[in-house]
Amino acid sequence: MSSLRIGIGPSSFAQEDRAPLDILLRAGVTVVPNPTGKRLTEAEITDFLARERLDGLLAGLEPLNRRVLESARPTLKALARVGIGITNVDVAACQELGIRFSFTPDGPTQAVAEMTLAALLHLVRDLGPMDRALHAGKWPKMVGRSLKELTVLMVGFGRIGRAVAAQLHALGCKLIIHDPFLAQGTPCPYRQVGLLEGLAEADVVSLHAAGDKPLLGSAELAAARRGLIILNSARGELVDEAALVQGLESGQVSKAWFDAFWQEPYSGPLLRFDQVLLTPHACTYTRHCRREMESEAARNLLRDLGMPS
Amino acid sequence: MSSLRIGIGPSSFAQEDRAPLDILLRAGVTVVPNPTGKRLTEAEITDFLARERLDGLLAGLEPLNRRVLESARPTLKALARVGIGITNVDVAACQELGIRFSFTPDGPTQAVAEMTLAALLHLVRDLGPMDRALHAGKWPKMVGRSLKELTVLMVGFGRIGRAVAAQLHALGCKLIIHDPFLAQGTPCPYRQVGLLEGLAEADVVSLHAAGDKPLLGSAELAAARRGLIILNSARGELVDEAALVQGLESGQVSKAWFDAFWQEPYSGPLLRFDQVLLTPHACTYTRHCRREMESEAARNLLRDLGMPS
Repeated sequence: MSSLRIGIGPSSFAQEDRAPLDILLRAGVTVVPNPTGKRLTEAEITDFLARERLDGLLAGLEPLNRRVLESARPTLKALARVGIGITNVDVAACQELGIRFSFTPDGPTQAVAEMTLAALLHLVRDLGPMDRALHAGKWPKMVGRSLKELTVLMVGFGRIGRAVAAQLHALGCKLIIHDPFLAQGTPCPYRQVGLLEGLAEADVVSLHAAGDKPLLGSAELAAARRGLIILNSARGELVDEAALVQGLESGQVSKAWFDAFWQEPYSGPLLRFDQVLLTPHACTYTRHCRREMESEAARNLLRDLGMPS
Repeated sequence: MSSLRIGIGPSSFAQEDRAPLDILLRAGVTVVPNPTGKRLTEAEITDFLARERLDGLLAGLEPLNRRVLESARPTLKALARVGIGITNVDVAACQELGIRFSFTPDGPTQAVAEMTLAALLHLVRDLGPMDRALHAGKWPKMVGRSLKELTVLMVGFGRIGRAVAAQLHALGCKLIIHDPFLAQGTPCPYRQVGLLEGLAEADVVSLHAAGDKPLLGSAELAAARRGLIILNSARGELVDEAALVQGLESGQVSKAWFDAFWQEPYSGPLLRFDQVLLTPHACTYTRHCRREMESEAARNLLRDLGMPS
């Protein structure tokens, strides 16, 4: 039996499938669950790390800034983030303080790509309005769009952007790509365009970029083809919320899907629009994806604590 | 200018895209639209054919039984159905009466396959419940299923079944096939199973069979894995409605999508179930699919009337 103590940040860890928990238990470490059952605040995670004398943490979205990390040393030796986003972790501070850090960059790709496809098909085939109408006793046949009718502008051509593009291309969409950060010589099998040029041509724009500055504001939406469909599984901040609301009101934006918001939980003006599909930052919430990401994070953590896994 | 007169049954003909109408107009025929703007009854189609002295009809779902056809001869020489279902046309009577008959068997395939994929993703990723909850100010993260977690039983492996299977297989689903009418030697790249055997194994059953007898009744639903998801884009009659309602109430059937019903417009007991996605027989309602089917039917009709197209 090892004397190592590992804390679990995400309350959803191993809830759907206990395989990731078994990886830790088989290694003989002591597992300490998040005592609150929800996302820990800065005060709570500081207290959790110190009081439980944790050697390692499987991290969710709790704030792991320099203050928190400094107060947890020298006991805390490794952090393993379950997921791809690392905006809640001060990675530089980890390095300075000798805390090993890992994340699971490949885990979410397929689940995000499938959710993006689900949202696109849902919107272009009018499943929401038809389902609501039929449940209310009406029978409106709405004429949707086939995938082969659609030109999709991908903004961001990283790991997830590539997976989404490959899937949509295989299903018949025409793809165009905008990614100013794409390294010279990176293979891209689709036509690359400027943002405004792409928006003028696309039926759909799908956001898969990093950053926290708006890429789609009033000027960009005005340059788009009328009736643009926006898919946002990346970050709320990539879209100017006021400009989006105005675009939805004028019809310049016909439909949208948002899984990522400016504030979460979200309860802002998008709630007023039936033509906006809303999901609660749930792109990676499939059994398969959760199990893979959690298992990978558990193995990363054991490795960084010097344990076999 | 030809003196041929062609009637248009479906009120939706060339509404989204006038290309199919232009095929007729360029041939110089006289085009007579359906005067009611909705599906013609037996009395109305009988009157329409006689009063307008129609040489050809682009047919929708209006009843074209022996009585109607007999009363229209000898003027009526050709019928071209826009679509794949031919249960409203007495094809044997057409043959006896010398009325040429055509339909568009390939037209709907891709649109139906995409709608089936849309419905499956909508259901397994809980888009309906999450969207409704967020619009009501809640934030429930629901754990869905990845396509690679799913075993899909295809009942019927004809033109549409094959297209659906190919798409789901490419996206990672495991496919099993039940089709007792599959001719010996027909290539089938997936494992073939008996119906009950397949239901015991499948997470999802997708119906793509002909016929009007229930394939899924109480006994079949009882033999299925608990939580079965049913996709029905084919015919309402393939499922016993009372057994389905009972299965939904008990949880034996967890979710379903129906696009085809026992009676249409439908306003039966499925309206009570939020976990049932309902669409109004709209699988072929995409701009691309309508244009292709309508154009093909227009060319078929001109050919059968001896006109170049």
